[in-house]
Amino acid sequence: MQPEAPKRGFPVAEFETRTRNAQALMAETDLVGILLMTEPDVRYFSGFHTLFWQSPTRPWFLFVPADGKPVAIIPEIGAALMRQSWLDDIRTWSAPAPHDDGISLLNELLSPLAKIKARIGILKGHETSLRMPLNDWERLVTGLRGLEFADATAIVQGLRMVKSPAEIEKLSYICALGSKAFSRVPELVAEGQPLEETFRAFRCTALTLGCDDIPYLVGGADDGGYHDVISPPSRRPLQAGDVLMMDTGCTWDGYFCDFDRNWAISRATDTARRAYDVLWRATEAGLAAARPGNTCCDLFNAMRAVITEIDDSGGDVGRLGHGLGMQLTEQPSHAPFDRTVLKENMVLTLEPSLSYGDGLMMVHEENIVVRKGGAELLTNRAASELPVIT
Amino acid sequence: MQPEAPKRGFPVAEFETRTRNAQALMAETDLVGILLMTEPDVRYFSGFHTLFWQSPTRPWFLFVPADGKPVAIIPEIGAALMRQSWLDDIRTWSAPAPHDDGISLLNELLSPLAKIKARIGILKGHETSLRMPLNDWERLVTGLRGLEFADATAIVQGLRMVKSPAEIEKLSYICALGSKAFSRVPELVAEGQPLEETFRAFRCTALTLGCDDIPYLVGGADDGGYHDVISPPSRRPLQAGDVLMMDTGCTWDGYFCDFDRNWAISRATDTARRAYDVLWRATEAGLAAARPGNTCCDLFNAMRAVITEIDDSGGDVGRLGHGLGMQLTEQPSHAPFDRTVLKENMVLTLEPSLSYGDGLMMVHEENIVVRKGGAELLTNRAASELPVIT
Repeated sequence: MQPEAPKRGFPVAEFETRTRNAQALMAETDLVGILLMTEPDVRYFSGFHTLFWQSPTRPWFLFVPADGKPVAIIPEIGAALMRQSWLDDIRTWSAPAPHDDGISLLNELLSPLAKIKARIGILKGHETSLRMPLNDWERLVTGLRGLEFADATAIVQGLRMVKSPAEIEKLSYICALGSKAFSRVPELVAEGQPLEETFRAFRCTALTLGCDDIPYLVGGADDGGYHDVISPPSRRPLQAGDVLMMDTGCTWDGYFCDFDRNWAISRATDTARRAYDVLWRATEAGLAAARPGNTCCDLFNAMRAVITEIDDSGGDVGRLGHGLGMQLTEQPSHAPFDRTVLKENMVLTLEPSLSYGDGLMMVHEENIVVRKGGAELLTNRAASELPVIT
Repeated sequence: MQPEAPKRGFPVAEFETRTRNAQALMAETDLVGILLMTEPDVRYFSGFHTLFWQSPTRPWFLFVPADGKPVAIIPEIGAALMRQSWLDDIRTWSAPAPHDDGISLLNELLSPLAKIKARIGILKGHETSLRMPLNDWERLVTGLRGLEFADATAIVQGLRMVKSPAEIEKLSYICALGSKAFSRVPELVAEGQPLEETFRAFRCTALTLGCDDIPYLVGGADDGGYHDVISPPSRRPLQAGDVLMMDTGCTWDGYFCDFDRNWAISRATDTARRAYDVLWRATEAGLAAARPGNTCCDLFNAMRAVITEIDDSGGDVGRLGHGLGMQLTEQPSHAPFDRTVLKENMVLTLEPSLSYGDGLMMVHEENIVVRKGGAELLTNRAASELPVIT
């Protein structure tokens, strides 16, 4: 049965709440504002949603002040769309303008704060980047002497980690569509089909089922297993004995699913079956451990304990899952270094992986929301034994 | 007729040439290397091609030295794929590692250069960003006292602007697929169809024709014209009298087309026809001006002269076209500020736009390669009159 699509967008109250929550944390840390510049961060506080960010040409800025609504400082080409948001103060320039791409407008906004030697937040920590030219950044900082720039990564990532009911509805929907698309794979795949065609058929199926886009689709297939998990598809035809894996990030209304599935083509080797079984049970252990109060490190350890049955190498992936939302991967990380305490309404991936045989690897992935009582699956749980496509 | 797909990837000679060309320019500017960190720049010199960059978690680095092959400093998860490239020196760490995400490895590579107070290039100019946490960048710079960081934006963007025959083959192919997809639109569209479904049908058609992906698809449709050019599709059903526009960046083997098409639904207003005609002729003027020796500013002026017949406002888009390649938009810009001299084998978009009527706008776009004798179209030229879908 086709799941019913939620409403697109968010009511204004959603953005008011996000902004108020940020402002409460800003008050605690003595910040008079936070300057944002990446797509998900700008979208989180404004609702501004466009694929135009694909173009690296123009910088975009959103300033969340200590009180009141965010202020947008954006290229003129985005003005019409931003005017449909809940913001009132939208300042634009004719971009691109290499000699002044928003810098004067930022100066105008921020120099009163520099004069009083205030402190504003920027995102400069783990999993962030500076989405503006470094030259312009240096120029901006020089022009705003007196202003203190503090790292507000923890504030914004901390808020974004815990999803609202409306966000969970969208995530649940895209995970349902992804599950449905994966359930069709046995009909789409045949021995002799070049992997590239398998990928193309999967994309079309996902679109037809209602996904807006498939920004992420990687995987592999080879005799008895695959060798890496981030490659684009080859032209190699699928053969009996292959293990096929596809890992997808489909989107709906700007929210991602991120999970994978494995299949054997015509027949499965015992080692592949065994690897699959260990990962399936590692995921079970993750599901059991994903409850409020446990940490991401606990979650990592729970999955790792099962994986070590056949692989104690530590693996190449660096973690066993992560946060999920407006980005394919978000904070936190299920890894020994991450002591983030799991909270209700965090949406996470569980992604155990292992190496086996002669340079082969396998990865499983499910998407969950953390509820009071524990993990709730957003994806249809993978089959408990390696499915064979015949 | 279906165009024939070129070979995927590039021969090693392609990367050798790119690297040698960069090294020649580095010698002229006294640089001992260039440090790169964004997807297209890393791919340009290594061939490393994966959608995994969708995840913002891990930084990736490529150092192009004054002599020899580039050195990759990358997360372990990318090692298997990078080993398939032409590089020999691939250094990895288990990422994510928030306390040391590649910084020690970069230090090890670069501190001998810091000791001799050498000068390396980074990309910090127009259309660049710092794809690593600013905290890590500041730590890296502090740890490498003595090393001078110079802006190498012009070197790398300058090389990337002029395409090789193999790159032009890929660009030509994806433009042909895009043209074919647009030619099918009249069969996909009907009065009453929600725009969202039109977009979905277009994506599926493009995939079926052979595109790898459709990372960019924006547009609009409304009575007599559309109001902005970067929005995701609405659920509004198409109605008689609408002007529909779709603008797409489809990819094949990591190369983009970027062009749009306009259609009237059932009937067209005179003002829409007139706007279309002006833009069609503005594109003709662009095609005539796109020859080696002219500048981007000349190209802008040639198109602008026609546009002013009905709109002298200057528009919201900020330019009338740009470079095209591994990114949807690349340097240069057809704008008054850009004095880049057109060279043979530059691949460009011509993208005149104008405002008309009551807050309506229209945009046209074609993709070309600059040849000795002038512009060669890579897209099938749009119809000279606004096509009406009946």
